[in-house]
Amino acid sequence: MAIHPGTLAVVPQTDEPSSFDAATAVQRTEGGRLVAQLDPGWDVGGGVLNGGYLLSVAARAAVLQSPHPHPVALGASYLRAPAVGPATLTVQSGPSGRTLAHSLVTLADAGGPALTVQVTTATLGHDPSAYSEPMPDVPPVEECFSVAEHRDLAPPGVQVPGLSLRVDTRLDVATAGWAFGQPSEEPVLRAWMRFADGREPDPLALVTFADALPPTSFAMGNMGWAPTVQLQVLVRALPAPGWCLVEARSSEIAGGWVDEDYRIWDSTGRLVAQSRQLARAPRG
Amino acid sequence: MAIHPGTLAVVPQTDEPSSFDAATAVQRTEGGRLVAQLDPGWDVGGGVLNGGYLLSVAARAAVLQSPHPHPVALGASYLRAPAVGPATLTVQSGPSGRTLAHSLVTLADAGGPALTVQVTTATLGHDPSAYSEPMPDVPPVEECFSVAEHRDLAPPGVQVPGLSLRVDTRLDVATAGWAFGQPSEEPVLRAWMRFADGREPDPLALVTFADALPPTSFAMGNMGWAPTVQLQVLVRALPAPGWCLVEARSSEIAGGWVDEDYRIWDSTGRLVAQSRQLARAPRG
Repeated sequence: MAIHPGTLAVVPQTDEPSSFDAATAVQRTEGGRLVAQLDPGWDVGGGVLNGGYLLSVAARAAVLQSPHPHPVALGASYLRAPAVGPATLTVQSGPSGRTLAHSLVTLADAGGPALTVQVTTATLGHDPSAYSEPMPDVPPVEECFSVAEHRDLAPPGVQVPGLSLRVDTRLDVATAGWAFGQPSEEPVLRAWMRFADGREPDPLALVTFADALPPTSFAMGNMGWAPTVQLQVLVRALPAPGWCLVEARSSEIAGGWVDEDYRIWDSTGRLVAQSRQLARAPRG
Repeated sequence: MAIHPGTLAVVPQTDEPSSFDAATAVQRTEGGRLVAQLDPGWDVGGGVLNGGYLLSVAARAAVLQSPHPHPVALGASYLRAPAVGPATLTVQSGPSGRTLAHSLVTLADAGGPALTVQVTTATLGHDPSAYSEPMPDVPPVEECFSVAEHRDLAPPGVQVPGLSLRVDTRLDVATAGWAFGQPSEEPVLRAWMRFADGREPDPLALVTFADALPPTSFAMGNMGWAPTVQLQVLVRALPAPGWCLVEARSSEIAGGWVDEDYRIWDSTGRLVAQSRQLARAPRG
């Protein structure tokens, strides 16, 4: 088990709303509609917004309309990439009970629906685990590789996206060979992750973290993008403050498709979220 | 790598439609509505129908309304258990292109919506894999443990469900200790699987297989049921004829919730499907 570096980083704390909270804010208009401003700072390159970021916006809308405070399961179809700027959120409430509630959230821009999400909300606590998958052994955060601090290493044509300036991502060097021209034979990436402005993780943050690593095919030296088709995120517990460990791996790359399978542990080593997505595979 | 037993089993082949095809058939009425007859034979006990079976019915409806022949990604919310008997299927078509199409399918009985599913359809082929997770090493099928043939071992009050008479399930004895009063400390089940009437696997079959093992908590000696809340299934390739190997494991059991994570390999050892669900955990 690694030394957990959660308390090592000194980050600025201010009274300003965090970059994440401002960028995912959902407001109710006087007419009762839910609206958001999709923030250009959360892109993955070329003005395309990160799928996890968009899912956090949809999760906020679901929670606003639910008797329960936390998203515990989200199943999203990515229909098209929405434009930066104003978006509307439509929440169709489904069955709701004492334990959980279901809803269907549609995020749309001026061009129409971009993302539809089935959301299950409930109340997460700090219950002890009857079984919990242990965190993999990784070096401490200060021995890891910061994507944002090594922008000059980016290959020609690869721009460091806004996402990696806002989500501090420190790759386990064992999975960062691709950044030094030494790709791996395994599509696995592993990184410590937290918001760059020090905002602590919560269920909404985990929804973004669950799609915030570079495409797993980067590990194998294929630097193309992998647009998400469907993404499921499960949030399993309230995360402790500090860095999260995020691991993504693919199990099958074939026929133009790739899966990406995430597991996220908090700074106490507890599994707090999982995700799996089907994406279009980048051309090799 | 195990000896693949795909060609060892002799099963009856007739011109009758298979039990699975009959039980998942979706018909179009003269009025243009899509209807199905939910079959009591596909229960998991107590008249409750298997979630994978219901998802295969919804997938059939999606394919009927799509230009593409195969479900490749399905994200389902289980709102309530539908009754056996007549059901209606409503398909709202979403964006559709040359590579894939999106839709939202609602399965309802007289009591209202029971299951809503986001379905992505596409065309699966036999493309070679750029990367494929190898199949775990397991004993051949004839050395495995048939749940249906050992009904007398079921603990008092546990009825062998219809599902396990229709889906021939041969547990790797390394994960079947619970059936002999020797539960494991790991929530893992692994089994060879095929339809009992010899119908060969295809993408629709994989959707059922992706939720057809007993709850993973059985492995730890907890014999309660685990109702599915959300389930995602990804179909990754056309499966070869013969037995599939199905492995399910949980990563976190806490606060009344459990995940179940499936991987399915075909008789050639290729990964052909994955699923992950969030379920309510059985009381320990």
